[in-house]
Amino acid sequence: MQVSVRRGRPGHDLESVLRGAVKVFNERGYDGTSMEDLSRELGITKSAIYHHVTGKEELLRLAVDRALDGLFAVLDEISAMEAPAIARLEELARRSVLLLVAELPFVTLLLRVRGNTEAERRALARRRSFDTAVADLATQARDEGDLRSDVDPAIIARLLYGMINSVVEWYRPRGGRPGELAVSIVTVAFDGLRLKR
Amino acid sequence: MQVSVRRGRPGHDLESVLRGAVKVFNERGYDGTSMEDLSRELGITKSAIYHHVTGKEELLRLAVDRALDGLFAVLDEISAMEAPAIARLEELARRSVLLLVAELPFVTLLLRVRGNTEAERRALARRRSFDTAVADLATQARDEGDLRSDVDPAIIARLLYGMINSVVEWYRPRGGRPGELAVSIVTVAFDGLRLKR
Repeated sequence: MQVSVRRGRPGHDLESVLRGAVKVFNERGYDGTSMEDLSRELGITKSAIYHHVTGKEELLRLAVDRALDGLFAVLDEISAMEAPAIARLEELARRSVLLLVAELPFVTLLLRVRGNTEAERRALARRRSFDTAVADLATQARDEGDLRSDVDPAIIARLLYGMINSVVEWYRPRGGRPGELAVSIVTVAFDGLRLKR
Repeated sequence: MQVSVRRGRPGHDLESVLRGAVKVFNERGYDGTSMEDLSRELGITKSAIYHHVTGKEELLRLAVDRALDGLFAVLDEISAMEAPAIARLEELARRSVLLLVAELPFVTLLLRVRGNTEAERRALARRRSFDTAVADLATQARDEGDLRSDVDPAIIARLLYGMINSVVEWYRPRGGRPGELAVSIVTVAFDGLRLKR
């Protein structure tokens, strides 16, 4: 634990402020949310928020970095696997679903970032870097003869993550079974929704 | 042509105002855009906008209805097809991609609607009704033995449209080939991205 972490009263600690802010950003849009809005919605003073962060841009950065750091950590782990690229791509997809569900509000915010501010542009640049890594893995799987070659691997990577990311639009944590969902998505994406007869 | 359509100077007609407004909504978010913002961004007076619509809610309604009317028209057409449910589902998906590309800004706005206002909630209700129709078609395809039965048809419908709708995030009209894209998406979704050996 870092000594420099500043702590407030329970409910006023950085993690609570961050989670509350992300909820408001997701409901009202990041652009449309002011520090006044955050103060009112979180029921704490602006100075209590400034105790933890320099402003709403820092809250955005902390939030999207949580999602992005998670995605890159998964990417590192699957890169270390000794397995064909298709198996690594499947495992990347499965773990991405689990991460999305575990960090739902943070990933939701990341996917809604537009690029109107420096913090947003930085997040988009990190997303592009992740997308490139997925496309490279898909290209490798195609070259190994395991991924269909009639569609550009970069398009396949986008469609795969389009399917995965769409989960933020409808997944509700209550009663959900993230492991089953992850398997369903990987099955549909890799083997298709048509039943082979 | 309706006689009641009010026309302004070129560039100030309803279609131009609507397209301009949708562009601004997509860039800044609907919630974060005021009539003042629209007036400034479109380079026309607020009264020129009010000449055509009662306010930004009506602009939103007109925009999302264009996307939704298109989707329901496709649904009507494929309902009239005499073909197995799986073939109708494929054709619905293919035509949905073409519609998405043809009406890209309108569909983009529809997909970003949150439900903070009456016009937004109405759009969400129409979307849910479309989603239900897709899920019903998927259920029928499963009952006919053509759709995989190890994943809930409602989830399959969501994943299929998650993949299709994600196109708004990266598709660029310049140089795009909508027909090829539609075939690629249908192929990946129905037959999977894995190459069968």
